[in-house]
Amino acid sequence: MATKGEVIRCKAAVAWGPGKPLAIEEVEVAPPKAHEVRIKVVATGVCHTDWEYLYASGKGMTYRPFPLILGHEAAGIVESVGPEVTQFSPGDKVIPLFLPYCGECERCRSAKTNLCRKNWENTQAGVLADGTSRISHQGQQIYQFLGVSSFCQYTVVPDTSLAKIRSDAPLDKVCLLGCGVPTGYGAAVKTAQVEKDSSCAVFGLGAVGLAAVMGCKTAEAKRIIGVDVNPDKFERAAQLGATDCVNPRDYNEPIQEVLQKMTDGGVDYALECVGSPAVMTAALEATTEAWGTCVIAGWTETEVMDVKVIKILMGRTLKGTYFGGWKSAIDVPKLVDDYMNKKLKLDELITHNLPLDQINAAFDLLKSGKSIRSVISLQVDT
Amino acid sequence: MATKGEVIRCKAAVAWGPGKPLAIEEVEVAPPKAHEVRIKVVATGVCHTDWEYLYASGKGMTYRPFPLILGHEAAGIVESVGPEVTQFSPGDKVIPLFLPYCGECERCRSAKTNLCRKNWENTQAGVLADGTSRISHQGQQIYQFLGVSSFCQYTVVPDTSLAKIRSDAPLDKVCLLGCGVPTGYGAAVKTAQVEKDSSCAVFGLGAVGLAAVMGCKTAEAKRIIGVDVNPDKFERAAQLGATDCVNPRDYNEPIQEVLQKMTDGGVDYALECVGSPAVMTAALEATTEAWGTCVIAGWTETEVMDVKVIKILMGRTLKGTYFGGWKSAIDVPKLVDDYMNKKLKLDELITHNLPLDQINAAFDLLKSGKSIRSVISLQVDT
Repeated sequence: MATKGEVIRCKAAVAWGPGKPLAIEEVEVAPPKAHEVRIKVVATGVCHTDWEYLYASGKGMTYRPFPLILGHEAAGIVESVGPEVTQFSPGDKVIPLFLPYCGECERCRSAKTNLCRKNWENTQAGVLADGTSRISHQGQQIYQFLGVSSFCQYTVVPDTSLAKIRSDAPLDKVCLLGCGVPTGYGAAVKTAQVEKDSSCAVFGLGAVGLAAVMGCKTAEAKRIIGVDVNPDKFERAAQLGATDCVNPRDYNEPIQEVLQKMTDGGVDYALECVGSPAVMTAALEATTEAWGTCVIAGWTETEVMDVKVIKILMGRTLKGTYFGGWKSAIDVPKLVDDYMNKKLKLDELITHNLPLDQINAAFDLLKSGKSIRSVISLQVDT
Repeated sequence: MATKGEVIRCKAAVAWGPGKPLAIEEVEVAPPKAHEVRIKVVATGVCHTDWEYLYASGKGMTYRPFPLILGHEAAGIVESVGPEVTQFSPGDKVIPLFLPYCGECERCRSAKTNLCRKNWENTQAGVLADGTSRISHQGQQIYQFLGVSSFCQYTVVPDTSLAKIRSDAPLDKVCLLGCGVPTGYGAAVKTAQVEKDSSCAVFGLGAVGLAAVMGCKTAEAKRIIGVDVNPDKFERAAQLGATDCVNPRDYNEPIQEVLQKMTDGGVDYALECVGSPAVMTAALEATTEAWGTCVIAGWTETEVMDVKVIKILMGRTLKGTYFGGWKSAIDVPKLVDDYMNKKLKLDELITHNLPLDQINAAFDLLKSGKSIRSVISLQVDT
């Protein structure tokens, strides 16, 4: 296993172009350069955002360059480190991060935000600090989605985009702490700062929404109303803390009016976990006048939501959350602790375990609403 | 002057219908009923909102019934009180309030909001608690705008819609504390909670916007950028604390881009004091990623603003303010103290003093951008 300094040949699911199913290919992963870490990816979740960039590129999402290796919700083990890396060693369990934490910039030092911008432009463009990717296929560069690319058995990430986690953490579970769960959970407990005995509505009961339900429950909300057009999601939501679940398709009136009636004027907190501008508007309007707070956790990059000005003037607040407001590299290890200490549930969100070559099936499960999270095992063949 | 218990005949500026100039008429003002106070209106400001309800009814504003007596930013003296009124006595100096404060409801007891709803529906509909107005003209009921109607020498208001103020306060100045100044000032210091050394942009430099500039200065903001399409407003803005003033018409690019360049990424706080959805969108987009806060203080009732979702997801907050977040009856007396103690400026906002029969001229001055506030003296003939 003397791979340090060598190019590693391994399997990856490559997106050759928008709208095309992923293809399992053998790729080359170059050694890490300065301030980079090469990791063996053990497990990765399959997130709606991966699907969106592949099948909805240009529709709600900005175009990203292809060929591309998707995947951004993962856990793995450090294989080797590049020069000047001081915080990581081979064998460390880690979670790669699409949101960096440099610890030094104005934003990292501020309690107001988690939006560090170290390597931001290049990782958003699918490359590392030197403007190139570390992954290639027969000499052709393959872009790294968000600088991560966890649909690959090995990847290289900046050392400011990586969280070191405890050695007893099960990677096939805590991989979910790379994206969806922190986003929804943090939307409730950090961005909305849900209060005890409050009323909450969570729009969308996928992994992000279910994590938001858990956040509301952790915050001791009195009423947690799950909203989804797929009633198959309701049982799990109830298990995780939802006190009521409603399906907008069961009503002739807009869902915000249904929720207003259910709560005598609107919820204290609404958490949008879908990424649809129409749902965002409904979520805002489902909050109570005077102090209602609506947090947008769902992702869209190009769309515009309608905000009735009077709703804002009458005391409502509209906020967004990115990665749940967590400062990635320092907070993810704490979330791992919460999972290990049974304060945060992950197993309940994992509906399927699949090998890498079934990645397209995982997308199908996601889009058909049959899965919450499929976890892909990347090392089953090695 | 034994008017107690009698109908008072006095002058008023009556709005007979939308779009028609106000007509000076003799009206009858009935004695106050239970929990009502009849006041002699000494001075009233002329606010953009008065104009809007008259000339833009149905366009941005919901329709209010006519005939109507406008005016909602005033100061006066208690003439008499109805049964069960315990907090006011004849001779008290007072400021009538379109926003109530009952002191007892959940909202009054919460630190999160000032939106008390005591008598709200009826005062919004232009009548008092019994469903009727106290003002009539030859037997025809005249609706009371927001329950106030200060374009009348006398009016009757609920005792929960009235602030008792110190006896040495000059009514022809502190009348401005009935609407515009608290709204703009509070948008900065209470709703946005502008921080020391921050950067701010104030959109619209009328009375509300200039009060917002004062609020930013009180909060010790480092940079206060005034934005208006009328450069005649800039000198006064600078006197009140603006460090820069910009005219969007001087630039080919959108004003939010101009402000982003001026501030290396956007302001910490943007305060919209115009009431235009397009300006609201610009204000939101002028704030910095990560922690920018946009507060809407401008008024519109029916319009919708466009919010690019990505702007919210990247850490911005959108809030509204109503009466600047002040709890009306208890905070207005403190603002009067601030004025008397020279901590809050009002004289500088008063550009014209006119008698009631020149009220239409005051509207013309307002709409032409030649006035900040015209103060109407209602008792010059009595």
